Amino acid sequence: MLRVAVLASGNGTNFQALQDACASGYVDAEIVCVITNKQDSGVLERAAKAGVEGVFVDHKGLTREQRDEIFLEHYEQRAIEFACHAGYMRILGRPYCKAMDGRAFNVHPSLLPAFAGAHPIEDAWEWGVKTSGVSIHFVTEELDAGPIVLQRAVDITPDDTFESFERKIHLAEYAIYPKALKLFAEGALRTEGRKVLIERDVADPVWAGSLPPGLRDD
Amino acid sequence: MLRVAVLASGNGTNFQALQDACASGYVDAEIVCVITNKQDSGVLERAAKAGVEGVFVDHKGLTREQRDEIFLEHYEQRAIEFACHAGYMRILGRPYCKAMDGRAFNVHPSLLPAFAGAHPIEDAWEWGVKTSGVSIHFVTEELDAGPIVLQRAVDITPDDTFESFERKIHLAEYAIYPKALKLFAEGALRTEGRKVLIERDVADPVWAGSLPPGLRDD
Repeated sequence: MLRVAVLASGNGTNFQALQDACASGYVDAEIVCVITNKQDSGVLERAAKAGVEGVFVDHKGLTREQRDEIFLEHYEQRAIEFACHAGYMRILGRPYCKAMDGRAFNVHPSLLPAFAGAHPIEDAWEWGVKTSGVSIHFVTEELDAGPIVLQRAVDITPDDTFESFERKIHLAEYAIYPKALKLFAEGALRTEGRKVLIERDVADPVWAGSLPPGLRDD
Repeated sequence: MLRVAVLASGNGTNFQALQDACASGYVDAEIVCVITNKQDSGVLERAAKAGVEGVFVDHKGLTREQRDEIFLEHYEQRAIEFACHAGYMRILGRPYCKAMDGRAFNVHPSLLPAFAGAHPIEDAWEWGVKTSGVSIHFVTEELDAGPIVLQRAVDITPDDTFESFERKIHLAEYAIYPKALKLFAEGALRTEGRKVLIERDVADPVWAGSLPPGLRDD
């Protein structure tokens, strides 16, 4: 079983989707720990509830490289093979990206390369697009620019508000982030330059289009 | 009935989709003329076959502004109210864009703002996206940046080749360009800043997902 760390700063909804995907057997992987830079983040609560170790890493006063080192030490201590960045709001450095080359995904709530940056949902809405979406990509040094593993389109329909659009974006994340991890865990991905070839496709998780089990009571 | 000119440089497949949409009554508009800068372009043949006037405008030696003026004169002579740019491969100038402000659409084979420019299908493929698509936008001075009227996503699936991807992109064009024109012709669009609000949605043309009638025998 692939040993996975999740890196998150927020409420941990994508951690929950990944955890549900592993716990249900959809993905043959174990989320060994959650690492966060926010002591009061919802993700630590979710991790505790799921019986997953939560690790708080205090960023204060650390350089990017020092942070990188701490993360990599945590990974080494736990024999982590793969990292899922899930709403981790800091930029990682060259040592981290090099060490985790080809072994870390990030989720970005737009169809990259459109709307890279910190506010993709708002930016897409303000630009007036009719179709945006979600991307899962390999983590590379260049922010939001790694090879794309999966994308899913989300349409803005005439009756959408920003809130309903945002909700659809998150549902797309909960569908394709677990799917991307499943593809990796099953060895179904091959990277050629900046293209990720999917050698055998897999089904969506059963909850695709709605909330994964662990988010239904929120 | 809205009096429409189509501007094209190529094979005229999008002209054909628009013409089929008008002829079948799906769009309450008449394509009065096709204007092209290529005397041997397929679009002139298609126009002749459909009984639509074809106009060849020789660009040689003309400045952008002189071209603009010629187009606008042709429009005026024919009481053209709206222009559909459909693979017209030259940049129009400020006088044209100003005169046709809010009265001209362009089709671009990517989900703008991603992959603006001259080779969007190739660029998206090379970048390794998993989802691209098609955009219909108002023509403005800034190239490929006008307010978005409609977009449609096109997925790259594991078995796609560049050619099959390109074919799906074109099918999406044939579906949403007529639909965008129908929305305009029915007064269903309202522009607020760079957002186009669709006040009442309309159905896709019946051929959406496959070829319009005039392209089936190609």
